[in-house]
Formats: sequence, structure tokens, C-alpha cells
Amino acid sequence: MNRKVRIGILGAGRIGKLHGENLARSVRNVLPCAIADPYMNEETEQWAKSMGIQQCCKDPEQIFNDTSIDAIFICSSTNTHADFIKRGAASGKHIFCEKPIDTELRKIQEAISAVERANVKLQVGFVRRFDHNHKKVHDVVASGVLGAPHLIKVTSRDPDHQPMEYIKVSGGIFMDMTIHDFDMARYLAGSEVVEVTAYGTALSGAGYEKMGDIDTAIVMMKFENGALGVIDNSRAAHYGYDQRTEVHCDKGCVQVENDRNDMSMISTADGVMLSKPTWFFLERYNNAFIAEAQGFVDSILSNTPTLVDGMDGLAPVQIAMAADKSLKEGRPVLLSEIK
Amino acid sequence: MNRKVRIGILGAGRIGKLHGENLARSVRNVLPCAIADPYMNEETEQWAKSMGIQQCCKDPEQIFNDTSIDAIFICSSTNTHADFIKRGAASGKHIFCEKPIDTELRKIQEAISAVERANVKLQVGFVRRFDHNHKKVHDVVASGVLGAPHLIKVTSRDPDHQPMEYIKVSGGIFMDMTIHDFDMARYLAGSEVVEVTAYGTALSGAGYEKMGDIDTAIVMMKFENGALGVIDNSRAAHYGYDQRTEVHCDKGCVQVENDRNDMSMISTADGVMLSKPTWFFLERYNNAFIAEAQGFVDSILSNTPTLVDGMDGLAPVQIAMAADKSLKEGRPVLLSEIK
Amino acid sequence: MNRKVRIGILGAGRIGKLHGENLARSVRNVLPCAIADPYMNEETEQWAKSMGIQQCCKDPEQIFNDTSIDAIFICSSTNTHADFIKRGAASGKHIFCEKPIDTELRKIQEAISAVERANVKLQVGFVRRFDHNHKKVHDVVASGVLGAPHLIKVTSRDPDHQPMEYIKVSGGIFMDMTIHDFDMARYLAGSEVVEVTAYGTALSGAGYEKMGDIDTAIVMMKFENGALGVIDNSRAAHYGYDQRTEVHCDKGCVQVENDRNDMSMISTADGVMLSKPTWFFLERYNNAFIAEAQGFVDSILSNTPTLVDGMDGLAPVQIAMAADKSLKEGRPVLLSEIK
Amino acid sequence: MNRKVRIGILGAGRIGKLHGENLARSVRNVLPCAIADPYMNEETEQWAKSMGIQQCCKDPEQIFNDTSIDAIFICSSTNTHADFIKRGAASGKHIFCEKPIDTELRKIQEAISAVERANVKLQVGFVRRFDHNHKKVHDVVASGVLGAPHLIKVTSRDPDHQPMEYIKVSGGIFMDMTIHDFDMARYLAGSEVVEVTAYGTALSGAGYEKMGDIDTAIVMMKFENGALGVIDNSRAAHYGYDQRTEVHCDKGCVQVENDRNDMSMISTADGVMLSKPTWFFLERYNNAFIAEAQGFVDSILSNTPTLVDGMDGLAPVQIAMAADKSLKEGRPVLLSEIK
Repeated sequence: MNRKVRIGILGAGRIGKLHGENLARSVRNVLPCAIADPYMNEETEQWAKSMGIQQCCKDPEQIFNDTSIDAIFICSSTNTHADFIKRGAASGKHIFCEKPIDTELRKIQEAISAVERANVKLQVGFVRRFDHNHKKVHDVVASGVLGAPHLIKVTSRDPDHQPMEYIKVSGGIFMDMTIHDFDMARYLAGSEVVEVTAYGTALSGAGYEKMGDIDTAIVMMKFENGALGVIDNSRAAHYGYDQRTEVHCDKGCVQVENDRNDMSMISTADGVMLSKPTWFFLERYNNAFIAEAQGFVDSILSNTPTLVDGMDGLAPVQIAMAADKSLKEGRPVLLSEIK
Repeated sequence: MNRKVRIGILGAGRIGKLHGENLARSVRNVLPCAIADPYMNEETEQWAKSMGIQQCCKDPEQIFNDTSIDAIFICSSTNTHADFIKRGAASGKHIFCEKPIDTELRKIQEAISAVERANVKLQVGFVRRFDHNHKKVHDVVASGVLGAPHLIKVTSRDPDHQPMEYIKVSGGIFMDMTIHDFDMARYLAGSEVVEVTAYGTALSGAGYEKMGDIDTAIVMMKFENGALGVIDNSRAAHYGYDQRTEVHCDKGCVQVENDRNDMSMISTADGVMLSKPTWFFLERYNNAFIAEAQGFVDSILSNTPTLVDGMDGLAPVQIAMAADKSLKEGRPVLLSEIK
Repeated sequence: MNRKVRIGILGAGRIGKLHGENLARSVRNVLPCAIADPYMNEETEQWAKSMGIQQCCKDPEQIFNDTSIDAIFICSSTNTHADFIKRGAASGKHIFCEKPIDTELRKIQEAISAVERANVKLQVGFVRRFDHNHKKVHDVVASGVLGAPHLIKVTSRDPDHQPMEYIKVSGGIFMDMTIHDFDMARYLAGSEVVEVTAYGTALSGAGYEKMGDIDTAIVMMKFENGALGVIDNSRAAHYGYDQRTEVHCDKGCVQVENDRNDMSMISTADGVMLSKPTWFFLERYNNAFIAEAQGFVDSILSNTPTLVDGMDGLAPVQIAMAADKSLKEGRPVLLSEIK
Repeated sequence: MNRKVRIGILGAGRIGKLHGENLARSVRNVLPCAIADPYMNEETEQWAKSMGIQQCCKDPEQIFNDTSIDAIFICSSTNTHADFIKRGAASGKHIFCEKPIDTELRKIQEAISAVERANVKLQVGFVRRFDHNHKKVHDVVASGVLGAPHLIKVTSRDPDHQPMEYIKVSGGIFMDMTIHDFDMARYLAGSEVVEVTAYGTALSGAGYEKMGDIDTAIVMMKFENGALGVIDNSRAAHYGYDQRTEVHCDKGCVQVENDRNDMSMISTADGVMLSKPTWFFLERYNNAFIAEAQGFVDSILSNTPTLVDGMDGLAPVQIAMAADKSLKEGRPVLLSEIK
């Protein structure tokens, strides 16, 4: 492909606009040219214009039917993802899809099959793989300099509660939030999860228990390659977005600390103060979102596999289901129990 | 008590000599005056003399029968601990006992009962509670400024393999090594463990599996107060003694990093190098051993409870047993299952 | 002004293109619409087109004469700066000018006078003021929470030697490199320098002494408000761009460390390795360049003073001259000696 | 010498007792056996007894005349140092002397001559050379792995004001406080200072200016080997004892941060808090005082030169005089001007 990849965006919410801005400003060899949203309005049209996105519409079919469009970014609500993937594949477009593909395995598998049949690219939005910090941990482990991985640790705490209306439809902490950590665990271990045991509880006082959800969790994992892993989660860290990873290997350990707002240190009689971790994913993974989109565009242009493919979209959903089952049944759950 | 506490030491191995030196040099209001060891030899007698310890003997009865001795330090092999406690209590002496009291619950309970009947002090050697770093985490949590604890995390990795002859008789990783972390978890949570689930494996290539042991472990815990906890262990970190704790509470998080050999940073074209963590417990907990002995002496002189009492000696053994059961049976184990 | 600020860029070298890209992609309420360079070529035209810059020319007069252009970015060689400022002011355009304005005081003063007469904005390119780290130090000091500043320290080391052809025409280390630190010192102290003493030498073996220049320098400063300051410089740190500031005040100290490539830590038997500081100013001050341009645009749109004005452009040149005089004459030099 | 070094201590103030305790408890192959102080009282006698120091007296002659005593620790007021060195040398005793030897060059030189004639050991109390942090910087530089030193930086700030009665007789900041930094600069540079320029002022509001003294200083140095150096001082850092060193060499940089009270980090919505640097020299250089005394004892027993000899005692006094002259005369001062 000797020209710019032409992109149509499905969904003009926060994440759709984020990708739109990155595609317009910071990603090379790409042209965002259309955006569809059932709630398309003047404000969004204004925004699209300022980004050089020429076409705004309510009906996604306008994008699927536009043969000048090479690829789509699926940024709509989760329940539309699988159908849009199938529709996109059928229309021969490469597909970037926000996580999760779906919360039903059957629908995910159908979507993946459609992608395979159509022989188009599919990349799922596990953005942290493109973060300079987590990627560094991965690359050091994958390089083999530290020997085989023994222990994978992921700390992942959101800075503060999301709106309760969102929580209600989120699918629960494992499907909504830990799913990123399940992906990270697989990515760092370089191996598949074969068993999980989950502990979880609601301690924050915000009322998660009323929705059958939790705000505090620990999940242990066994990997196919023999390594063990553990994730700890909180819905409300308060001090910022706490995202740290650590892999202990045969010859040593690689870990990353949080990025901070700045590298300042203020020392007084009261103590020594550092700046807080960057607030949330928009601040922390700002550059990772750009790298993610660039990676997708580059995969299309060089006709190479995407770095986060359909199976990478499927596996974390299966692990989330296993974790949920473990929490509910109070026992270790084998991934083979999840179909 | 208006005079120095007179101490008899049982066991003249590495840890007995460590306590002897601290008592002779660095602890206030104390006088180490006797040491007993079945393998007493000239070298040890020389050492004792240089420490101002006047009496050396093979038979511990000489110490138990010496009415001028106020207190004993039990630094002999684990299988002698419970009997020495009972014998010490019977002779009216206060007792400092290295961990664990025993690996059988019945013997621990008998020892504790003997102590209670005799109304003497008993302190168990969980030295990390006296370390400035871990103590700081505890004190911040206990102060309540961060609100209730939600998540307790303990990382504990030995720098390198212990001799395999030692491993064989060590009682397994949970009873030998993780027992310190179980104590730390209770201490930081301010609550009792009610359930554990353990994952463990042998990955180091050093042959732990041949002895029915493991070298890599993760243990999840539920506490009575609703908090969750997790410990990760390795027998061979290689880069030093990796001992970090972290408690995430309602309003924030307190954690400690490892002490390093020094605070230097060397920056070259090859990278930026920090000094390694201090090598092992003798280096890392040097001052904690002194504070521990001082705490024991102070408890005697002020007739106040010791900071690590008999129940603190019992609980981690029970948790270790539960963890072992969980590992073997592949399921969560309630502490109430352990008698 | 209710529309986008239209910008003409003078100079299409590295820094001109950097500003062009930022204006095109990352700065709000702005439109880069023309670029002039005597060596304009097809490659630059291609680049301009990709940035949406419509007009490319060789003659800067085309920009000065274009009444649709509101402001200019002077990114050409230093010897053209003062004339372009005067010409820009005469044509009623707001002016962003890379540092230094000139190396002759008379020419700087004439340029400033021209700007004042024309009543246009002038901002000088001391980009570090817009860096999140140094700005944090400034803001903490300026807030007064630490009381009056006593000691200002600036460490500034380039990662590696610049080409010797560049060094020859650079005006010497004080005018070329330390000038940024002189600006930073004034900015952090919130006060003017009244005296300097400079020590300098050539130790790197790269041959600076042959050009009458140095590669290693320390400059002490006295400020009008009574504070003292010190800058240390090296032309070749080798481990990255070492840019740290520290202000010790009446009640405490605020300092910043270098940004690193990532927050990873790799611990092995060989030591503990951190990632290196980001390589040079393009990596380190990436976001600061955007903030700098945004600040200029915002000043125009809100008709408020720029954050780095003509006097801020003049003062560091005077300090550099005083430092040079001090180095050559081996004595403290008062700023009042420099006219 | 095949036995313990027998020590007599001159002066039973804070520093005399500090050395006495270290010699009694922590230094090997040594026996503190006498202490003299004109204000000898019961409390000190009690303390001496508890340390196993048998002889307490008012007249130092009792120590000089005691032929069983091998070495003396001079911990009395500065004005007695030189005479005690001469008297000690005359009586054939090895000498540890607190800094400074004297504030008059002639008296220092006479003392050194007396030591040389008597062929006894002399060690001067520049304790920081024995600190694990500063020693690491020295050792890395001295090893040559970073190439030749170019820039030596020493930050040295006391935590808070000393009593004004002390300041009045202290000899001024350079002779009292910076003298340690002058020693450190020579030690790290591995070379002699040939020129200094000092800036100093009183900004703290505590009234140093009324005594002709200053509380804030920066001193630049040129070394014989071509390196440059700079020291910054404050009498009142408030946040603790700020003692950092940094050497930039041909191939990179080695620096040390302050030791902290512990390695904790507390993260809340208000920020991220580290523990403060250890308070003052007694806390920070606790182990360095032991290493210093051990080094002296080892030099005697192995008949090797002390690590801080008479010339090391003389040079910092000369540099302090040059700094003082520079401050008063407002010009660079060559060390060769100081006789």
C-alpha cells in the first residue's frame, strides 16, 4: 500500500475522539476521513472538521459501504463490537476494536472467524502493551537476559470510582478493569493462563456490593510455562493511577514504577514530598494510544500481523470469566472449564 | 527491677552469637552472663570471654538452675524450643525464643500454657517487626491516618539458596521462610487470617521438588477485618534480600522499598546503576535484632507485655499449615480447619 | 481576536520544522501558513505540504508583506534575529524569536525598542521555562510556601559534543549553552543577577581549548534579592542530558531530577539498573516546545504579556558576557560593567 | 603489636563520649582505659565505669605519663589540640585528633613536625571519609572506571542553627563547617586545591551578620589536576542534614543521595511523602565514627599510614583561610597566598 491508510471511526464518545485526534495529529501515514455515531450532533461535527475528518454520519453503514475506506476504529459501546467486526470484515476493512470484543465467548469466536475468513487485520485495544514502561518490562523478559520468568506481578488501581451507572453495566471488575491486567499478565509471562483463583470484596463504602460487584481484588494465576502470577486491584487508589508491573525471573527482577506528574522533590521540616502519579489512563497512556494506533497502521501498510490479535482479545475475556467463577464458587478454576 | 537483666543463652550457633554480641554491646540494662551449647568448644569460650559472658557450659540445666539468671534466649534448634520454654517457665525465667516455637500445634500450645501458668514473659523472634522500615508501614496503618486497610502485600525473597541439608529439615518453605511473612501480614493488617490459598512451584533448578518442597510461592489471605492479603516468595532473588511491604488503605497507600548498600547512583553511557539491596537478614536486620532484644529487656524491666507474644508465635505456624494444606489439596483452606 | 493566529515561519532548519510540526499538530488556535528559507527545496516543500503549510518561499519579505499573517517564528541563524525582529515589528506582526536575540547588546536593544514602538508581542525561545519539571520548581519558589530563596543551583550538561564546526561559530559555551541556565537562574531566583564569577576549563580532550572555548564550567552568581546561585556545565555528560535545578529557600528545598526514558529498574547479581535520562533537548523538552508555542499564541489571543519578553532575552546575554569577562580576567564581574 | 590498643581519651564532652562508647562497644582490638577532663564529675565517672573505662582524671598529664597507654583521642576544645598533639607525640603515643588541628597554620605545622619527629601515627577526625556513601563516590572515582574527574560538587547543609554562643567562637562557617567539605573535595578530587573564590551572605534572619559570619555560602575551587569544584552550604536546611556529593568524570557521573530515616513512601490524594533525611551527624555518621576509630586502631596494629594524616589536617584549614580571604576581599585567592 503506497498511500495513507484511510480510516472510518465508529463511535464519537471520549475514546472515539481520542483516537480521532491521535490519527489526525500524531500518527503517520494515516487519514481519518469519516466518523459515525447514532448521536451525531453539531458539536461533534465541529470537532471532526477541526480534525480534518470530512464525513460525519449517524449510520455506520455509510462507513462500511464506503469503498475508499481501508480500515475502521470500533469505539462504540461493547455490545456493538462483535457485530461491527463481522460487518467490517465482510466489507473487507481492517479492524481496530476497543476492548473487550464482547462478553460472550461465542460472539467473540464468531467475530474472530469472520476476520479470518475475510483475511483482514484485527487489533484489539489493549493499549498498555504500547506503554514505554510496561513494554520495557516485557522486552527485558522476552529478551531472555534474566532467564525464564517465575513470578509475574501486576498492580492496577484506578484513581477513583467511576460513575455507578457505568459500573452497573460494566460487566463487573474482572471484565471491565482487570481484563487489562489479564492481558498484561499473558503479555509479560509470554504464556497462557491455565488456572486462576480470585479473592474479592467491597471495602470502599461506595456500594459495589449492592450491584453484586467488588472494589478490591487479588487474583492468582498459573501459567502454561510453569510461572505463577498475581494481580491486585482497587477501584479507588485516590493518589492517582497506580499501574506497576514486576517480573521476577531466574536471574533477577525487572519492575516499573508509576510515571509522576513531574520529577520534583520538596523537602521541608514536615517531610519530603514527591509529585503524585499521573491521574488516569488518559494522562498515563497518552503516548501509548498514539503508539497503538501507529502499530495498527504499520501492520496494514507492511502487511504484518498486528501486535494484539483476535486471540489476544479472546483470552483475557476467558480469564475474566474464570476469575468470576472462582470468586463466586470459592475455588481455583481451570481455564479449560470455560468454553 | 532496679538492676540489669541477667541473661542465659541456649545455643551458640550463628543466631546465638548474634544475640550474645548485641546483648553485650548494644542493648541497655542487660548482662549476658551464661551460654550453653552441647557442642561447646574453646573457640566459643574465647568468644564468650571477649563478650564478657562469664559462664560457658554444655548442659542447659546449669542455666535453668542458676537462680541469678533472670531470662533466657532460646537460640537452639527448633525441636528443642518448646521443651526449653516449658523448662524455662518452670524455673521462673523470662523467655526469648527464636521462631518457630515448634512445628506441632500441640507442643506450641503446651509451651504457651506453661508460660501463662508461670506468669513469665515470652517473646518470639519475629525480628522484622522491629525493623525501621516495616515498623513504619505498620505504624502508619495503625495510626489510622489512611483509614482501614484493604490490601496487604508482602514481597519476600531470599538472596540465594540455603544449603540443601538445611532445606531438608526446614519444614518446607511456608514453615521456614514464609512464616516471617505470615507474621508480617498479621502485624500490618492488625487482624487474624481466616483463609488462605497457596500456589507454589519449583522453578529454580536447584531441586526443591525432589524434597517435596518449592522455591516460588504466592499465598492469598483473607483477614477477619475483611482485608485481603498476598505474599510472594522466592528462594533465590540473586540481587539481594528483597523484603518489601505495602498496605493499600481506604485513603491511600504506604509502602517500603529495600535498604541499599549505599545511596549512590553511577550514570554512564551504559546506564544508571544503583547499589544493590543489602545482602541478607544479618545485614538488613542488624539494627532490628538490637531493637528486638531491647524490647524484650524493656518488657521485663517495666513489666509490660512483650511485643510478640505466644499467640503471635502460634498464629503464623497455623497459617503455614493452612498454606501447606492448600498447596497440597489445591483449594482454599480455612484457618478453622487447622487444630 | 476571534480566529486562529496565522503564523509565518522564518527558517526551515531543525528548529523551524520542530515549531512547524508543533503548530500544525499540537498547538490550539493557530494555523502555520507560510515558511521562508533561502535554501527552500523540494523536500521542505513536501514537508510543509504534509503539515498543511500552504506557502513556501525563499524570500522572507513575502511573509513580512503578507497582511494575512499575524505572527512570525524566527528560527533562522542568530545573525538574522535582530533584523527580522525589527522587520517583523515594522510590519506589525507578533514575534516569537529563538534565543539568543543577538550577541551584541546594541542590536538587542534596537530590536526591543522596535518591538515596543510597534506595540507587538515578543517572546524569546527559552523553552525550559515551559518544562513541567523546571516550571514546578519555579512555581513552588514563587508561591512563597518555602520562604525567600537563598541558593539557586542549576546543573546543565549536554549529552555529547556538538560538531566542532558548530562550536566554532557558537559564541562560546556561555553564549551558546549556559545562556539557558542564566535564564533559568533568573527565572528561579525571581531576581536579577548583579555579579558573576566564572571558572572554566577544557578537560574533555575534544579540543575546545584550540578554539578559545571550554567544555567544563562553574559560574557563581549574586542576585539583587541577596540570594546566591551556581551553575555547573559540561559539554559531554555521556549518560544523557543532565538538567537538574534546585532552590534552597528559607524553609526548605525544592529540586527536580532528570526525566528518564522509562521508570524501570532491573535488579540482578551485577547491580540495580535504571534507565538513562532522556537523550537531549528534543526528547526532554518535547512537550515544553508545544507549551512554549501555545503560550505565545495565547498571549496574542488574550492580549497579555508573553512569559519570556525582550528583557528576558537581553539579560542572559549580558550575564554571558559578564561570565566570559570573568573567565578571561580571573575576577568577579559586576553586571553593571556590561553595557 | 599482638595485643589490644590501649586508649586514653582527652575531653569528656559529647564527642569524647561518642568515641568512648564506640571504642568500648563496636571497635575491635582496642581498650579504652582512661579519660581526662578538667570538668570531670560523677556523672562522667558513672558513664566511664559503664563503658569499662577504668581511670577518670582531671589532669591530662596522668594520661600522657601512663606508659601503659598506647594512643590518645583528642576530643577537647580546639585551642588545646595542637599542644596535646605535641605533648602526646613527646610521650610516644599515637594520636587521633578531632578536626581542626588548630586555626593557626604555625601551630598546625609545629604539631605535625612533632608527630614526624616522634614517629607516631596521627589521624585527624574527618569522619565523612569513612561514611559508606561518600566513600563509595571516592572509591568509584579513584578506581578510574569513569576516567579523570572534571567537576566535584559537595552540598552540605546543617539541619538547624547551632547555639549562637557556639557560633561566636567557631571561627566562622569556613573554619567550622565548610572545613569538612574542603576535606571531602580534596578526597574526591584526589588533588590539591590551588585557588578558591567564595560567595557568602547571611539570609536566615538568625543574626550571623552581627558576628561577622554568614549562613549561606558557595565556594568554587580549582584543583591541581585541572578539575573544578564547588561547595554549597547552609546553616539551616530545616529538612535534615543535607550531605550529598557528586563527581562528574570523563565517562560519567557518580553521586550519592542522603540517607533517609526509612525507605517508606506514603501516597495519598495530598501527594507522595518520603521520610526525611536523617537528622544530623550523630545519626548520619553513626557507623562512620566506628569505621574511623577502627581505621585508626588498624593503622597502629598494622603499622600502616593513617587514612587522614597531618597534611590532611593542614590543607582544609589553609583552604578555609583562602575562602575567608576571598569572601572579604571579593576576589579569587590562590592557596599559595596562604602561609
